[in-house]
Amino acid sequence: MTRVAVIGAGPSGLAALRAFQSAKKKGAKIPEIVCYEKQDDWGGLWKYTWRTGLDEYGEPVHCSMYRYLWSNGPKECLEFADYTFEEHFGKPIASYPPRAVLWDYIVGRVKKAGVRKWIRFNTPVRMVEYDKKKKKFLVTAHNRPKDIMTTEEYDYVICASGHFSTPITPFFPGLDSFNGRVLHAHDFRDALEFKGKDVLIIGRSYSAEDIGSQCWKYGAKSVTTTYRSRPMGFKWPKNFEERPLLQKVEGKTAYFKDGTKKDVDAIILCTGYQHYFPYLPEELRLKTHNRLWPENLYKGVVWQDNPKFFYIGMQDQYYTFNMFDAQAWYVRDIILGRIKLPKPDAMKKDWKKWLAREKKLAGPEQDIKFQGDYVKELIDATDYPSFDIEGVNKTFLVWEHHKAEDIMGFRNNSYRSLMTGTMSPKHHTPWKDALDDSLEAYLANK
Amino acid sequence: MTRVAVIGAGPSGLAALRAFQSAKKKGAKIPEIVCYEKQDDWGGLWKYTWRTGLDEYGEPVHCSMYRYLWSNGPKECLEFADYTFEEHFGKPIASYPPRAVLWDYIVGRVKKAGVRKWIRFNTPVRMVEYDKKKKKFLVTAHNRPKDIMTTEEYDYVICASGHFSTPITPFFPGLDSFNGRVLHAHDFRDALEFKGKDVLIIGRSYSAEDIGSQCWKYGAKSVTTTYRSRPMGFKWPKNFEERPLLQKVEGKTAYFKDGTKKDVDAIILCTGYQHYFPYLPEELRLKTHNRLWPENLYKGVVWQDNPKFFYIGMQDQYYTFNMFDAQAWYVRDIILGRIKLPKPDAMKKDWKKWLAREKKLAGPEQDIKFQGDYVKELIDATDYPSFDIEGVNKTFLVWEHHKAEDIMGFRNNSYRSLMTGTMSPKHHTPWKDALDDSLEAYLANK
Repeated sequence: MTRVAVIGAGPSGLAALRAFQSAKKKGAKIPEIVCYEKQDDWGGLWKYTWRTGLDEYGEPVHCSMYRYLWSNGPKECLEFADYTFEEHFGKPIASYPPRAVLWDYIVGRVKKAGVRKWIRFNTPVRMVEYDKKKKKFLVTAHNRPKDIMTTEEYDYVICASGHFSTPITPFFPGLDSFNGRVLHAHDFRDALEFKGKDVLIIGRSYSAEDIGSQCWKYGAKSVTTTYRSRPMGFKWPKNFEERPLLQKVEGKTAYFKDGTKKDVDAIILCTGYQHYFPYLPEELRLKTHNRLWPENLYKGVVWQDNPKFFYIGMQDQYYTFNMFDAQAWYVRDIILGRIKLPKPDAMKKDWKKWLAREKKLAGPEQDIKFQGDYVKELIDATDYPSFDIEGVNKTFLVWEHHKAEDIMGFRNNSYRSLMTGTMSPKHHTPWKDALDDSLEAYLANK
Repeated sequence: MTRVAVIGAGPSGLAALRAFQSAKKKGAKIPEIVCYEKQDDWGGLWKYTWRTGLDEYGEPVHCSMYRYLWSNGPKECLEFADYTFEEHFGKPIASYPPRAVLWDYIVGRVKKAGVRKWIRFNTPVRMVEYDKKKKKFLVTAHNRPKDIMTTEEYDYVICASGHFSTPITPFFPGLDSFNGRVLHAHDFRDALEFKGKDVLIIGRSYSAEDIGSQCWKYGAKSVTTTYRSRPMGFKWPKNFEERPLLQKVEGKTAYFKDGTKKDVDAIILCTGYQHYFPYLPEELRLKTHNRLWPENLYKGVVWQDNPKFFYIGMQDQYYTFNMFDAQAWYVRDIILGRIKLPKPDAMKKDWKKWLAREKKLAGPEQDIKFQGDYVKELIDATDYPSFDIEGVNKTFLVWEHHKAEDIMGFRNNSYRSLMTGTMSPKHHTPWKDALDDSLEAYLANK
């Protein structure tokens, strides 16, 4: 029997499981699926843990999320086309749910699909090799609770282990003798730790914006962010400011490129994440920075050098859950023989075309359209329910506008579902006053 | 040519390099040695980094040490027999040096030996396999700066990657919603972060004792340690106390087994380390808790199931640097053919004998003598300079006595070198007042 290994049970890996299960439900014969998951539960990044650094088994902690995290984009842009928020929650809900609500939604679909039995939890993959004689992959994985390492053969491997878990952690002079806490965003957990404190944030992307806003919301004395190229430029509240790049730290004093300085209690490095695959050998390993079109991937998913090896979710992302779905359905249909791969040269020519377009993109509006076009191309090739990509693109643009208008208030807006057409209700409490991030509090009818 | 892979360039791995180099210096023909080191420099645990969690390449940070760490045992008990402190520093120095001084000493010997060229830095080992047909080990390692993974063949492998780097991190109810910092001792870096704070420490072993003492020394408002079985029982200062085991945390309040409670700002889990070898397959992997006699190791170093595979430094330790030396010389002499291994049954019988004795040990005095006897047995079999083991054992006992007398003052004592016979000078500043932990400050003549 054909065997498929899926690495990771986060949104991308679960999309793969769901893709196969939905084909099976429609009567298709599907391969045996084994999903390896390092964590003790599913949901990937969306599964919260208080742990930082290494987990109970000594494995690097996957979670980069923190308490009180709310979606930083409208849920209408990430809605599954085959399982709507309204179906899951039994009613329309507001547009920027906290983490626990999104986790519930992600796992709700696969719980219903009954695919949990395919997953081996607490089992990190140690090595994948391709045996050219056997034409099989050898996947070595480590069952941590039993401390047993075993190797099994597979016909296909889908790598879906994410790329927002392994921090990029630059050094600044003096960080090694700073007398307060220095941490990467990956290890940030509870903003209340920084209540009453002067917090310095390095970076200008989503982590910096959101962790800075959180620290402000939960009572930091001041938030200072520092940027290399240009400021985020939002209309920040009065105890929140942006400064040019940090140059050095002495004792508890931070020195900036414009000659200013400030005493700070904690330094949070919101400096991004790296693609990290310690279990993949040279010939299978994607090497890329975070971008909309990583190279060597036909249709963004098929590994050029070995087209029985796939990646899901390795792009930089505006589109998320439904893009992973589009990719998973596409990969599934290749494995099921429904989609025929062209010859290597034609594959290369195809992704090079996307790459050329990606390199010319100028700004978020073009980025969004680029990724929308990509998602549409994949969806048109499979039976994944098609949806209004143009509408999602527009919602992204309105979202950008709402952020520019009011960075601490944009989450109070509502949008229309592109899947159901329903307008989302306004949330019962403005984001800045909603301190309880539980599912119960969010779904309560107030 | 015979090839030997050494995994790790800490005190144990460096002992192996030194062992081979010293044989070569005396005219022996030695194999080619390749030492793989994950960090960017040598010294293992003794190489300090400000980083926590994952390093700049996404690898788990090896360092479990922290700023202001001073040796918690007399340097006279860990002195190299072939390279004394007096030789390295050019004068006698006091008995409890800070980390930087010990790091300087450890690397001083191998710098002089000229073995740095054998080490591949920033190169974690990903997998070791034994090819039964070729009778060779295949070692796959990942050059992180170049992001290249390669596999090479070896005749012997020495695993010396340590066992005080991968934390054991238990859960206590409420840790997941504690509104302050929760960390394992492994991630503790700068006690000044906890100045003026109420610190809770979980554990009763060396980390708890030393990190608690440090937090106290650098101005924590209070230190509370909590124990499972029995208290450490030292004569603590007035804002330092021991309580029965933590039961739960609510908000910032910790509840203990005796019904008492206390509000705390930070929780430091000093709960030990696990033996962790993600790169070793089933047939080569040591599975043990931290103990004086791990099983399946003939003479504490030869892997019973494949006697071309060795471990150095995997024991719980009173003896440290000079025990690693004793082990390294012994392993070297097996590889050089100077020591013949007995048949498998005889090897097993031998380590089972030690195991039986280990199981009957009752208390530190017997533990120390046990490990001293073990070190002596190894040293007697090689040309490692013999030294006064009985004298070291006695120094350990005096040290225990000094701790019991004055836990915040025991580091002010001096001991006689068992290698040179020189009495160490008294340090110029009492430990509790010596806030600068630099090598320069320690060696200054005041």
